[in-house]
Amino acid sequence: MFLIESRDKESMARTGLLKTAHGDIPTPVFMPVGTAGTVKGILQRDLSDDINAKIILGNTYHLYLRPGTEILKAAGGLHNFMSWERPILTDSGGYQVFSLTGNRKLTDEGAFFKSHIDGSRHLFTPENIVDIQRIIGADIMMVFDECTPWPCDYNYAKKSVALTHHWLDRAVVRFNETDPLWGKEQIMFPIVQGGTFEDLRKLSAEKVASAGLEGNAIGGLSVGEPAEEMYKMIEVVNDILPVDKPRYLMGVGTPVNILEAIERGIDMFDCVMPTRNGRNGMLFTSEGTINIRNRKWIDDFSPIDPETPSIVSHFYSKAYLRHLVMSGENLGAQIASIHNLAFYLKLVDEAKKNIEEGNFRKWKYSMVKKLSERL
Amino acid sequence: MFLIESRDKESMARTGLLKTAHGDIPTPVFMPVGTAGTVKGILQRDLSDDINAKIILGNTYHLYLRPGTEILKAAGGLHNFMSWERPILTDSGGYQVFSLTGNRKLTDEGAFFKSHIDGSRHLFTPENIVDIQRIIGADIMMVFDECTPWPCDYNYAKKSVALTHHWLDRAVVRFNETDPLWGKEQIMFPIVQGGTFEDLRKLSAEKVASAGLEGNAIGGLSVGEPAEEMYKMIEVVNDILPVDKPRYLMGVGTPVNILEAIERGIDMFDCVMPTRNGRNGMLFTSEGTINIRNRKWIDDFSPIDPETPSIVSHFYSKAYLRHLVMSGENLGAQIASIHNLAFYLKLVDEAKKNIEEGNFRKWKYSMVKKLSERL
Repeated sequence: MFLIESRDKESMARTGLLKTAHGDIPTPVFMPVGTAGTVKGILQRDLSDDINAKIILGNTYHLYLRPGTEILKAAGGLHNFMSWERPILTDSGGYQVFSLTGNRKLTDEGAFFKSHIDGSRHLFTPENIVDIQRIIGADIMMVFDECTPWPCDYNYAKKSVALTHHWLDRAVVRFNETDPLWGKEQIMFPIVQGGTFEDLRKLSAEKVASAGLEGNAIGGLSVGEPAEEMYKMIEVVNDILPVDKPRYLMGVGTPVNILEAIERGIDMFDCVMPTRNGRNGMLFTSEGTINIRNRKWIDDFSPIDPETPSIVSHFYSKAYLRHLVMSGENLGAQIASIHNLAFYLKLVDEAKKNIEEGNFRKWKYSMVKKLSERL
Repeated sequence: MFLIESRDKESMARTGLLKTAHGDIPTPVFMPVGTAGTVKGILQRDLSDDINAKIILGNTYHLYLRPGTEILKAAGGLHNFMSWERPILTDSGGYQVFSLTGNRKLTDEGAFFKSHIDGSRHLFTPENIVDIQRIIGADIMMVFDECTPWPCDYNYAKKSVALTHHWLDRAVVRFNETDPLWGKEQIMFPIVQGGTFEDLRKLSAEKVASAGLEGNAIGGLSVGEPAEEMYKMIEVVNDILPVDKPRYLMGVGTPVNILEAIERGIDMFDCVMPTRNGRNGMLFTSEGTINIRNRKWIDDFSPIDPETPSIVSHFYSKAYLRHLVMSGENLGAQIASIHNLAFYLKLVDEAKKNIEEGNFRKWKYSMVKKLSERL
């Protein structure tokens, strides 16, 4: 169930509360990505107590291959397996399968693909993707979809949307005829596709809205298209998606992307950027973006970012973090990942606070300026 | 200052307290290895609060190359640089330089070597190794020595011991004519060498004892020789080293090695085994040793080791840890490293408790049996 708690008067931004079987999620929310049942390099305790993640993502494709459904079933689901008591959302595997260019074949039935680990052959269908997510026990399941690349031929995108919609119907049937395996309610979100074509996005948003599920997602964005096109597509889609249900923009994005999307009525986000960029030495801070490999940080003994509420952001200096990253020490990736996630979560929390206080646009304007700084 | 607190009646084992500028160290003690200013993959907070390390090691060779003495000086020493408030011991670099076979040349003056990072040329002397450790600000500094390989020709070992002794004299002069840079007392330990030759070990122990420093170390063991030879050399040396000063056995070893050495009067240990083996999926547990990659753990959802007092040992299951290690996820290495270090520290704590209670040999006998189990 989703409750809207406040609305911004000057934009489509809003705050709310999404209730799931493993806990309530205040929105807007950023969900750290835990691909294979681990947010890379971060202990679950730090994820809950330090970063204070309200929900994390798991990846159906990766979890299906490793550890596999047999082990996940024996464990009693992913929450038990990975010792994580808060909500989990699993993506549908669509994005991963369609990234396996050359190693997958699409039919009406589903997607045949070869494992990136051992080359073994598998088939994902809208039905078995529901079944796998039942075994995983995700609080929020996603419908199997085709994620089109960018740029994409109009005719391909049109056919692809039709296939995604056909799969949506089948997924809903399977969802309705099955029950959670672990005694906890699961909800499912369908995904709007349509590339950067306004008419296809509208068509898809209407189809998705008509499915009447508990929340809705927008996929296939932030795949290379200019940010302005992405924002336009969000506007087109959010004009159609029901206002009273949570809207999840998949795989987006930079801090600025997130603020622009919140302004356009998005409630939920996930992205590998804070962790992946962190592993490469890129840090998001309250003063702007830092490449910690830059020589200018070599003797900067000030904290990574005193404004970010994570212990690592205060505890470690830029010079020390630089040393770790330059020396290829894993601790560098760990610190940067924790810091960047804490930064993202704080950003979204502040957005929420500013929406509640009627100050969102003004605050957003000043933040976008700060966030665009490269230190 | 070193205070002996209790002695085992049936062996040379003892417990004590080594007072350093950054805190008291109860002995026997195991010191986690923090080569380049980081115990690999472990946040400082977890090292102090969860593993409860009383002292850690830094490596003079690695720190000299990266971040370098200029940065360490600007930071005010290694404690500040890495945000670690408890004691630090730095090894002398001897072991690392002599591992650079083909890339180093030994003279009376010191050791010329090429950096393993960029091939740049450097010279370590007994004097500049003192100077570097003054900059690092280690609570316990080590004297520059030559670590001989095993097997080693008698004549080579004899010459090597003479060189190590010559360097010891020079290091003591430099130590006495310099002061700590950061206002905290530093002590220095010389190192007994001599390969597996009893007469050379005796000669070296006498030389080292005569230096009258605050503690003494035994190097050049656990480099490939049979364990029985190592134990014999410890006995020979510990008969000569002063009883009232701490004895540090460098780079040793397996849990069983450590218990055997405690029985023979050793107080201090360091070894990369708990972290390095952990990264490879080998776990030390209260029931025996585990290779977590083994298929038998695939659906074992019991905790890693309920008897080891670290949160990860209780919190995570063997099956989950196996999944992480098999998937190449860094979190696997992190969990295994924290667990193994907590296991080592608990082992040494229990040795201490059993010495105090007069039960050491009986306890040790039962532990050696358990520790030799492969599960």
